[in-house]
Amino acid sequence: MESLKVGIIGFGTVGTGVFKLLQSFNNIEVVKIAVKNINKKRETENLNKEILTDNPYEIVNNPDINVIIEVAGGVNPIFDILKKAIENKKHIVTANKELLAKRGSELFNIARENNVIILYEAAVAGGIPIIMPIKTILCANKINKIAAILNGTTNYILTKMTEKGLSYETALKQAQELGYAETDPTGDVEGYDTAYKLSILSTISFNKKVDINKIYTEGITKLNTRDLKSAKELGYRIKLIALGQVLPDGKIDVRVHPMLVSKKHLLAKVDNATNSIMLSGYPVGDLIFTGAGAGAEPTSSSVVGDLLVLASELETGNSPLPQAVCKHNEAAEQINIADTYNEYYISITASNNPGAIGYIGTICGKNNINISTIMQNGINEDNTAEIVVITEKSKESDIQNALKELSASESVKNINNLLRVMN
Amino acid sequence: MESLKVGIIGFGTVGTGVFKLLQSFNNIEVVKIAVKNINKKRETENLNKEILTDNPYEIVNNPDINVIIEVAGGVNPIFDILKKAIENKKHIVTANKELLAKRGSELFNIARENNVIILYEAAVAGGIPIIMPIKTILCANKINKIAAILNGTTNYILTKMTEKGLSYETALKQAQELGYAETDPTGDVEGYDTAYKLSILSTISFNKKVDINKIYTEGITKLNTRDLKSAKELGYRIKLIALGQVLPDGKIDVRVHPMLVSKKHLLAKVDNATNSIMLSGYPVGDLIFTGAGAGAEPTSSSVVGDLLVLASELETGNSPLPQAVCKHNEAAEQINIADTYNEYYISITASNNPGAIGYIGTICGKNNINISTIMQNGINEDNTAEIVVITEKSKESDIQNALKELSASESVKNINNLLRVMN
Repeated sequence: MESLKVGIIGFGTVGTGVFKLLQSFNNIEVVKIAVKNINKKRETENLNKEILTDNPYEIVNNPDINVIIEVAGGVNPIFDILKKAIENKKHIVTANKELLAKRGSELFNIARENNVIILYEAAVAGGIPIIMPIKTILCANKINKIAAILNGTTNYILTKMTEKGLSYETALKQAQELGYAETDPTGDVEGYDTAYKLSILSTISFNKKVDINKIYTEGITKLNTRDLKSAKELGYRIKLIALGQVLPDGKIDVRVHPMLVSKKHLLAKVDNATNSIMLSGYPVGDLIFTGAGAGAEPTSSSVVGDLLVLASELETGNSPLPQAVCKHNEAAEQINIADTYNEYYISITASNNPGAIGYIGTICGKNNINISTIMQNGINEDNTAEIVVITEKSKESDIQNALKELSASESVKNINNLLRVMN
Repeated sequence: MESLKVGIIGFGTVGTGVFKLLQSFNNIEVVKIAVKNINKKRETENLNKEILTDNPYEIVNNPDINVIIEVAGGVNPIFDILKKAIENKKHIVTANKELLAKRGSELFNIARENNVIILYEAAVAGGIPIIMPIKTILCANKINKIAAILNGTTNYILTKMTEKGLSYETALKQAQELGYAETDPTGDVEGYDTAYKLSILSTISFNKKVDINKIYTEGITKLNTRDLKSAKELGYRIKLIALGQVLPDGKIDVRVHPMLVSKKHLLAKVDNATNSIMLSGYPVGDLIFTGAGAGAEPTSSSVVGDLLVLASELETGNSPLPQAVCKHNEAAEQINIADTYNEYYISITASNNPGAIGYIGTICGKNNINISTIMQNGINEDNTAEIVVITEKSKESDIQNALKELSASESVKNINNLLRVMN
């Protein structure tokens, strides 16, 4: 294999994991590492401190380096740094989902002009091989659906809320104590991290550029233990699902939100920090890939895997992996959440009077919504009752109209939650 | 992409599926197809009958063809045919697990001498991407364990035996009626098909040549409904498991047999004809790949995927995919089943006398076997009782000795079954 001379930008948990793993590969030399704080104490084995720099341009402009590993994260200043690196003809291996989601197509265009490869297996689902398989061995397929759990933090929180009846706040706190959630958990719990990954995954799966700004994104912060309990009683688990599908008219429905997933579905069985991706395509049918979606070790597997593929490809004559060059200049026509069709779970607090259930049924019917299950969960002290409704497939805008009408009614005290359902 | 001129050998279900899928790819031309019976009526769309032949050497010796798709199966006469094709510098895409398991290393050596590529994603687990990921994006890992369900027929039969309490014979008959099992089911139900796939998978995972003749192979024909029922009561499902592991001393433990799999394990949740492969490696951790393991459509996804990767690679200068050339000339040191360590399930029919359970415990203890669970399933009409024992991790040879001693005893009427357990 071709010998690679590598510069690493970012030396946190993942960067250190990558450096450690690279010690076993003789054909890869780490020439320089860009760190945030050059004076920080570091215990990393085999690390010659002289290769550290706090100026990433010392890597980007270094003629001895032919590949950049970027594990720093964020869009600024990384975009400019990598742009310069590509213009300097350096190949890129990155784990930066936010960068790819927000400015990936610009980078891929610059890379194409410069005959340079960008690989990013680690950007989606950590150690799970998914980008490379979609681009290579699965490329005979028309992939028409993705349903995935792409964020370990939220899956861990939801698992604990389900298993132990914990509140969202308590489960989050435990996740933070165990290192599964960051001090500022916003990016995870609001679904942004999942949306970044989904935009990358759906772009390569559907062969059209999916715009991150048009992905409807809803996190898990509004879920309460009552929802998780009701879901369980009805034969479901609640998961934060990244959903992407190609509709019969070619338009694309891509979104991130919590869903009630039938407990018979394999995704319902994926617990704790594990990630799982279901792809449906023709002719392959349904495939499910499950594994660790984060952490230094699984992520380093993907980063170094990309590097080794690169080394092996460069040996054949320095021409880019044809299948690894993205060609997604056609924009996907993404539909609005209001135009999607789903089965729904609606949790309502209503007056405990005999007409309430009938009233809910009438409003639903008026808005083209068929109810498949309705369940009343006891009676509260204030003489209200929690009523849970599961609908048949309905249009989101109809549901929103029905909820407006219900909210305005005297019998309905509160619409507690609206969730979508996957069977 | 490079234009491929393809010859197909074998035109049954899979061959026809591949031909159909290839219609959507302009850069791939099917030049000739070798069939068994040239006079058979065929309804395949877009098939020009003039490209059919019943002589595969017309493909192998055709200078217009640069890739052979082999989906005929079996070792003879296919080995000789493919050998000739390789000597004629044709690349090979094959789904033939028996051939690769029995004579793969000979073929790979000839391919290396002739600078020709053999790809075989479809040979293991149908449509599930597993060969290419192991050889490319996962190649930074040391894989040390495989546990997999690689045969849809047996998994279907076991699912029906578990869910519906069917006998093996009835479940097999239903599987045959639905086309999930062949008229002669031997290759599937005796575990041979699974063993072929495991030999390929463990060879590329462990980077040492695993000898198919040294894989202990036990099928599902001796399982009865009582075993499936007891397993369920104890919190397990019975699955035909392909197991491969690298032991701390570097020796390799590779075998195929039914196992009680804890119902919490994701493999226990894989039902019907679905296949699933768990790989454990460092640094990636556990990965699970699940999907359709057979059938014309999923298999054609892998065959045409291999073809498209080949086309894309050949474009870069006709040098073989470095990572796709097998280098497994070092033979694995495979241990004998007698030297393996497992937890066990033992089903015994014993006299219904108060000493029986104590006696079983004593014999186990004498043979270094600790019992973790012991369960008596009611009393039979002839005043015998079925006793089920689950042991802690024990050596297979100790278990075999204990069973011999138990068989010789008056209290023990019959050793009904011995199965291994995976938690």
